[in-house]
Amino acid sequence: MQINGHTELIAHLGHPTHAFKAPMIYNPYFASIGVNAVVVPMGCRPESYPLVLRGLFTLDNIRGALVTMPHKVSTVGLLDVATPTVQVAGACNAVKRDAEGRLVGDMFDGEGFVRGLRRKGLALAGARALVVGCGGVGCAIAASLAAAGVGALALFDTQAQSADDLAGRLRTHYPAITVTTGVKDPDGFDLVVNATPLGMNPGDPLPVDVARLAPGTFVGEVVMKTEMTAFLVAAQARGCRVQIGTDMLFEQIPAYLEFFGFPTTTPEELRAVARLEY
Amino acid sequence: MQINGHTELIAHLGHPTHAFKAPMIYNPYFASIGVNAVVVPMGCRPESYPLVLRGLFTLDNIRGALVTMPHKVSTVGLLDVATPTVQVAGACNAVKRDAEGRLVGDMFDGEGFVRGLRRKGLALAGARALVVGCGGVGCAIAASLAAAGVGALALFDTQAQSADDLAGRLRTHYPAITVTTGVKDPDGFDLVVNATPLGMNPGDPLPVDVARLAPGTFVGEVVMKTEMTAFLVAAQARGCRVQIGTDMLFEQIPAYLEFFGFPTTTPEELRAVARLEY
Repeated sequence: MQINGHTELIAHLGHPTHAFKAPMIYNPYFASIGVNAVVVPMGCRPESYPLVLRGLFTLDNIRGALVTMPHKVSTVGLLDVATPTVQVAGACNAVKRDAEGRLVGDMFDGEGFVRGLRRKGLALAGARALVVGCGGVGCAIAASLAAAGVGALALFDTQAQSADDLAGRLRTHYPAITVTTGVKDPDGFDLVVNATPLGMNPGDPLPVDVARLAPGTFVGEVVMKTEMTAFLVAAQARGCRVQIGTDMLFEQIPAYLEFFGFPTTTPEELRAVARLEY
Repeated sequence: MQINGHTELIAHLGHPTHAFKAPMIYNPYFASIGVNAVVVPMGCRPESYPLVLRGLFTLDNIRGALVTMPHKVSTVGLLDVATPTVQVAGACNAVKRDAEGRLVGDMFDGEGFVRGLRRKGLALAGARALVVGCGGVGCAIAASLAAAGVGALALFDTQAQSADDLAGRLRTHYPAITVTTGVKDPDGFDLVVNATPLGMNPGDPLPVDVARLAPGTFVGEVVMKTEMTAFLVAAQARGCRVQIGTDMLFEQIPAYLEFFGFPTTTPEELRAVARLEY
């Protein structure tokens, strides 16, 4: 990759930046296909974020922004156009200018999760899904499951208000979906998602009672610290098909690439070119 | 060079960006010495420049900014601290934050020119110099010649007011230097500088009457379009030592590197690693 006066810029906005992975995935990919663009980490504090975002999107060579912690929620209020997924998720992780100069935002965390499920052959139309954990990532996954056409969504969070707020947004945007809250019994679902941080630390309890998991239930995970978390191991032992946490990351990148208007590719190709070991 | 979450950012601010050379010099250099920093072109229009500059300097990983056309003059008014060179030149091409968070600017176009002269063995203390052309680059060279201790500066511009304004700023900051304007006869100078665009186009007249150049006079050039401009060829034929235009570019980069606090190097090393052919 050689940066020059024709290089387009994708700002990767978050704070802190040290754990950023996107530059080591996108930039080798761009180099591999001869696209003159670069993802640049920008360590931006919350108090200056509106100023930074506004300034960056006046640049001629800005192609877009990847938005991460702690800016995903505050970005929503800075957009001119927000997709339904952004509105339901209450968060945004991708920003671009459209042809009219408007700031357009979308949210691909949940889309990555859903794409992973689809590529593993899970039919989502009319499916019954349980999402445990209604923080940022849980809201994003619920929003994308709704957009994918599930028939029923059960939401659980130890902070009941979070689940209820998300349920309200889902009912507003997707009145045809049956939305319930307050229960995390995994029995009877086509899909069960751990969207809590449980599994990050050794000795964490499992997010749901795996003894109640049926073998036909698909189990998805958001924790990326280890590929096979204790929850996924237990689910697999019950006969369930599973999706690991990093699938969400690699599956969402093609969605991002389409959003920004770049040639897209498969998660496998991205995993092959990524230089995450650096 | 692999950009990751620890990469420091140097914004290269100008408009348009297409002819930018700095990314193809700095980035291969940083890679060659293992410095995790990247120069990123940012096409910034004048009306949004103050916003962009302010926003960028709130970022945690901003190391500094390289400023070029059309922002060198307007930057001066946005600084908290301006060096005498910036004040005399009326322009700034390098910005950083200091330890107190102040925006500090310096100007290295003229410094590059002066470093080139020094490395060619020209003694500047007390020297008599003629600068023809008092636009941006002429002002910058005059400011750096003054800082380098010349004894007399003669300034000429077809727009007399430009030369007179520069003379006024020089007299304020360097009262010991004899500053004159209005004459471009190169006779009797230790150094004659073409700081006009003459030489950019075939058939341009020479900037001064070369028949009046003494062999002991050193002749410098700012035009970079060809290495040996007609003016330099004529001066060399008179027996003068000369400095080509791109020396100013490569000689100023070590000054920039010092300003930003990076390990510095020689212009030769920079020319060797640069990938300008891209």
